Amino acid sequence: MIKVAIVGATGYSGRELIKILIRHPEVEIVWLSGKVEKVTPISTIFPELKGRIELDCYDFVFDNKTAGSADLIFLAVPHRVSMDIAPRFLSLGKKIIDLSADFRLNDPLLYKKWYGVEHKSARLLSEAVYGLPEIYRSQIRGASLIANPGCYPTSVILGLAPLLNPGFVELNSIIVDAKTGISGAGRVPQIFTHYSERNESIKGYKILSHQHTPEIEQELTKLAKRRVSITFVPHLVPMDRGILSTIYLTLKRCTREKDILEMYKDFYDKEPFIRIQDQAPDTKDVLNTNFCDIFLIAKKRQIVIFSVIDNLWKGASSQAIQNMNIMFGFEEGTGLR
Amino acid sequence: MIKVAIVGATGYSGRELIKILIRHPEVEIVWLSGKVEKVTPISTIFPELKGRIELDCYDFVFDNKTAGSADLIFLAVPHRVSMDIAPRFLSLGKKIIDLSADFRLNDPLLYKKWYGVEHKSARLLSEAVYGLPEIYRSQIRGASLIANPGCYPTSVILGLAPLLNPGFVELNSIIVDAKTGISGAGRVPQIFTHYSERNESIKGYKILSHQHTPEIEQELTKLAKRRVSITFVPHLVPMDRGILSTIYLTLKRCTREKDILEMYKDFYDKEPFIRIQDQAPDTKDVLNTNFCDIFLIAKKRQIVIFSVIDNLWKGASSQAIQNMNIMFGFEEGTGLR
Amino acid sequence: MIKVAIVGATGYSGRELIKILIRHPEVEIVWLSGKVEKVTPISTIFPELKGRIELDCYDFVFDNKTAGSADLIFLAVPHRVSMDIAPRFLSLGKKIIDLSADFRLNDPLLYKKWYGVEHKSARLLSEAVYGLPEIYRSQIRGASLIANPGCYPTSVILGLAPLLNPGFVELNSIIVDAKTGISGAGRVPQIFTHYSERNESIKGYKILSHQHTPEIEQELTKLAKRRVSITFVPHLVPMDRGILSTIYLTLKRCTREKDILEMYKDFYDKEPFIRIQDQAPDTKDVLNTNFCDIFLIAKKRQIVIFSVIDNLWKGASSQAIQNMNIMFGFEEGTGLR
Amino acid sequence: MIKVAIVGATGYSGRELIKILIRHPEVEIVWLSGKVEKVTPISTIFPELKGRIELDCYDFVFDNKTAGSADLIFLAVPHRVSMDIAPRFLSLGKKIIDLSADFRLNDPLLYKKWYGVEHKSARLLSEAVYGLPEIYRSQIRGASLIANPGCYPTSVILGLAPLLNPGFVELNSIIVDAKTGISGAGRVPQIFTHYSERNESIKGYKILSHQHTPEIEQELTKLAKRRVSITFVPHLVPMDRGILSTIYLTLKRCTREKDILEMYKDFYDKEPFIRIQDQAPDTKDVLNTNFCDIFLIAKKRQIVIFSVIDNLWKGASSQAIQNMNIMFGFEEGTGLR
Repeated sequence: MIKVAIVGATGYSGRELIKILIRHPEVEIVWLSGKVEKVTPISTIFPELKGRIELDCYDFVFDNKTAGSADLIFLAVPHRVSMDIAPRFLSLGKKIIDLSADFRLNDPLLYKKWYGVEHKSARLLSEAVYGLPEIYRSQIRGASLIANPGCYPTSVILGLAPLLNPGFVELNSIIVDAKTGISGAGRVPQIFTHYSERNESIKGYKILSHQHTPEIEQELTKLAKRRVSITFVPHLVPMDRGILSTIYLTLKRCTREKDILEMYKDFYDKEPFIRIQDQAPDTKDVLNTNFCDIFLIAKKRQIVIFSVIDNLWKGASSQAIQNMNIMFGFEEGTGLR
Repeated sequence: MIKVAIVGATGYSGRELIKILIRHPEVEIVWLSGKVEKVTPISTIFPELKGRIELDCYDFVFDNKTAGSADLIFLAVPHRVSMDIAPRFLSLGKKIIDLSADFRLNDPLLYKKWYGVEHKSARLLSEAVYGLPEIYRSQIRGASLIANPGCYPTSVILGLAPLLNPGFVELNSIIVDAKTGISGAGRVPQIFTHYSERNESIKGYKILSHQHTPEIEQELTKLAKRRVSITFVPHLVPMDRGILSTIYLTLKRCTREKDILEMYKDFYDKEPFIRIQDQAPDTKDVLNTNFCDIFLIAKKRQIVIFSVIDNLWKGASSQAIQNMNIMFGFEEGTGLR
Repeated sequence: MIKVAIVGATGYSGRELIKILIRHPEVEIVWLSGKVEKVTPISTIFPELKGRIELDCYDFVFDNKTAGSADLIFLAVPHRVSMDIAPRFLSLGKKIIDLSADFRLNDPLLYKKWYGVEHKSARLLSEAVYGLPEIYRSQIRGASLIANPGCYPTSVILGLAPLLNPGFVELNSIIVDAKTGISGAGRVPQIFTHYSERNESIKGYKILSHQHTPEIEQELTKLAKRRVSITFVPHLVPMDRGILSTIYLTLKRCTREKDILEMYKDFYDKEPFIRIQDQAPDTKDVLNTNFCDIFLIAKKRQIVIFSVIDNLWKGASSQAIQNMNIMFGFEEGTGLR
Repeated sequence: MIKVAIVGATGYSGRELIKILIRHPEVEIVWLSGKVEKVTPISTIFPELKGRIELDCYDFVFDNKTAGSADLIFLAVPHRVSMDIAPRFLSLGKKIIDLSADFRLNDPLLYKKWYGVEHKSARLLSEAVYGLPEIYRSQIRGASLIANPGCYPTSVILGLAPLLNPGFVELNSIIVDAKTGISGAGRVPQIFTHYSERNESIKGYKILSHQHTPEIEQELTKLAKRRVSITFVPHLVPMDRGILSTIYLTLKRCTREKDILEMYKDFYDKEPFIRIQDQAPDTKDVLNTNFCDIFLIAKKRQIVIFSVIDNLWKGASSQAIQNMNIMFGFEEGTGLR
């Protein structure tokens, strides 16, 4: 039994963390904080939690008592906040799983370029482990600071990983046409996510300029062992949850679909949360699960890959808990089925 | 050909006014204002208007040149703003159609009770005409200041008017269970209308306390010629547009459905925008129209009435233009079919 | 550990039964049947189940081997089918939880009137226990045949039960304006539930003629110990899941809201799945849960009650499993949290 | 003033044709037919039409009196039906605008390959004019048989046409990731378009195998004057209306975005229904309009083009009426603004 705290409990990732953790047999939530004007029961903020957790949510201010006896702290806060508070928690001996982007990029200059500010804890970047269990499981085990992957990167990296051995793919051919539910934009009201603006309409946004692009490229580059650049175009879909990444790429030579599928099945053979589907997946198929469903079609040298996740689960909160399970030696799927 | 201006062009009612008016053969829009940081083409704010209207939108400040040569000004502004600016425009000889609630209640004390502030132009309340053409057509004809009805009141009053002759209905039995699309809450982002909050869920709100209640009661009282109180419960439905008011009431004595239907058909005989349907209407049936569709079922003394409108059209903008047509002697449906 | 079978596994209630049961520690699913052209893995029908259950689904034909070693059979079939097959399963010593309407009405004449056919197993009607645990827990314990309540009845009866002591409510004043997600209409495609017909629109249907009316009246009558008739008007809401019943009634005398709330809290004091909320509930608050959330407002003699459930969970499948837990002596919430 | 008939008035394209034509000053609808069990007022089938058109809809059977005095017949019927009935109407001297795919492909073998049946009127294929006014305006003027373009092809061809001059684009690099609202699948209920299946989920379908692929390739090939093959992947989006085609391609050499935009503006200079937008378009921006909105971003040799239309308007019915206007010498936008 470990004790955990959540900073950012009033956002959607925070809410999902709570919903998963209250059913987790090895965890006790001891402290919640978020954006609140005064101390407020979390079940007043999220009435769906009534009767399921009796805990107050505090407005976040850092001091030595913050997060109290917690062994592990989930940071479900906006970018730029984590890099400020993570070092302080680490210095108190807490472990950290950071759901923001602050520790995902290895290169502080890249961070500055894409997030617009100087990185305040650049020295931690080399310590942080990128929390994608299917790729970094052994490093996660001993980590103190997990950079939990972004939602788009999770779907794209898992969708591509089995193909990225040298010499197989035209690395400059990768196009990702991604589609997300609106919850990915968070819980702070904006015209961008106003009901009547987004309902019954689809549009592209941050075209070729989404901040998840360097994160995806960094990880694909490591897997391919050579520089990978992608064309990444996200879209807002009129639904609450789910990401579908439709990935297009060209192989160096014609390969039978069956052989490619075999590569995927081998690569993910032991993975409990990757499913190779034999029909095009619906984002709904993975709703409220930690699954990533993958489907592909090959035609001569062209491949189209479909990778779907729940953006708030495998794309954020349930993956964070999968990481926690690994860090603390619990069975990896505990609380996630 | 008349010249019109719109104050509040950046909201949803403003946008719909523009969309209807650009097809109106007797109207030229000469001036637009709204909440903008700097002068901005209206087609930048609403890209759907590109190529359909070339006009800039100004941030609203009142001076003698405001609205320029306009004969008529539509005020599509929040409550409390209209009562401030309407008198100034009137004193410049402009006609006004006010889409806010400021001139709908005859009693300034009632206004204060429900809207929380003192009415600043109380003397205009007796001059303002309630712009429901089916009831007040002749008064609208000569009016200078129209109080355009609220969306819920339009659907409820039209749904009930034919029954309110004395002695027919148990006046204290009226219950209105109303359902609205989210656009009714306007275009300013709030947690209340955030996509992920409202999507895939229905809830009641402002239960027995919605500010449209006194407006409905005032008008029903006039029609019934005795005091009417109602039970009014609105709900937020996960859709953009449309209002369905389901109205329950008890008759003083059993009446055949057929006879009641006859009363409705007689009452609305010459009305171009009221349709008595013979099946339960969908809110979608009246989308982008000025129609109010009504359907009813009677069983002994109990009647259930369904009244649907497009909240942004008959419940706001197209009704405002219907009023304009009457005021200026145009054929009543001009631009509305 | 018990063994269960599901007849009707290819519908939405069947799917939800499977999703709940595969996480239930005391249950093994041994047999699935439904509408299939040939034996098909259930995970082909519902790809979301891939990797979570490996079981084939058979086309339903009754013989002595059907359902094999199951101790309990869930019938998630259309009305009129259950009354045909339930007796056969019972004669094989199986226990039955029937999610159809076939055993809910005590009076076979009422069944004929509302469902249009003669009841084939009328003698079983007195044996069947109405599976609403909050009211019939002790009878459920020893039952062999559970008539699992309808979705609307569950929300309405639970919303009203605490008030129905004699002399408190004007029993002829009850109006239920109910709103349901589309999944309530099942998985068989019809124009009525076609995406483009239902999307972005709300409408009433089966007005004063919905087949759940006599079920609700029967149970309210038992609770009140005198004849209760209600006005019941259901509506289709553009969402997948959830029911909100807005219930209007008149008290015999003015009562303080606080006192009425007290009655609710007392009545449901020990109930793990009833939550008295202090704000108007969203249907989303109970999604994928066995909760029924209740909220009310009183004003003089008028009361408005909001009762929300997930129509496929507390309104069907999770309630069926709650009944199973009671029948077999498992802790009542097992598998439901 | 011309007289028109519609075959297939009970589908969504038929409904939209009616809604546009009843406002068209030069047209009288004289006859409607569709799938009906008996002669039925069209306003019973579509209650939204009540009071707007009083015409019966007949079940379709061909004889010499069919379509009566109509000068022009719209065929809004499933594929395979048009090729059967179009020749008969032509031989009666009627003009035809066919909204099905039957006359879009020039090569009957290609038709057989993609639509699975022998073409019955192959000799008409050379007579039929592909009804995309922006490309074939002069041929449309004199045509008797118009093959109205498919919804996807309209968005893709218009999105690409300005670039297809020889030597500019890598013709084998074109990838189209298309997204459609559900109404594109028609009005016949199927599990595929069942509300609860499609709501809140996105998925790819007919991947690399959609029947619009050869139509797009045929037209791009004509424009480019050399063989063009594309990668075409359509997706179903949880909304009723609208298509967004996101088109990826590689240029032969780096070109400034500004120069490419200039090519688009020149190409569509005089076109009333093409708008080059300066921000990523929402499908909602063109709802209920005949507009195609185009936006693009270029980065070195990579271009991403966004092309949005209303699938039932510019993608079907309003484009059919645009074609009618051209054929009969009416101002091209009559009835479409």
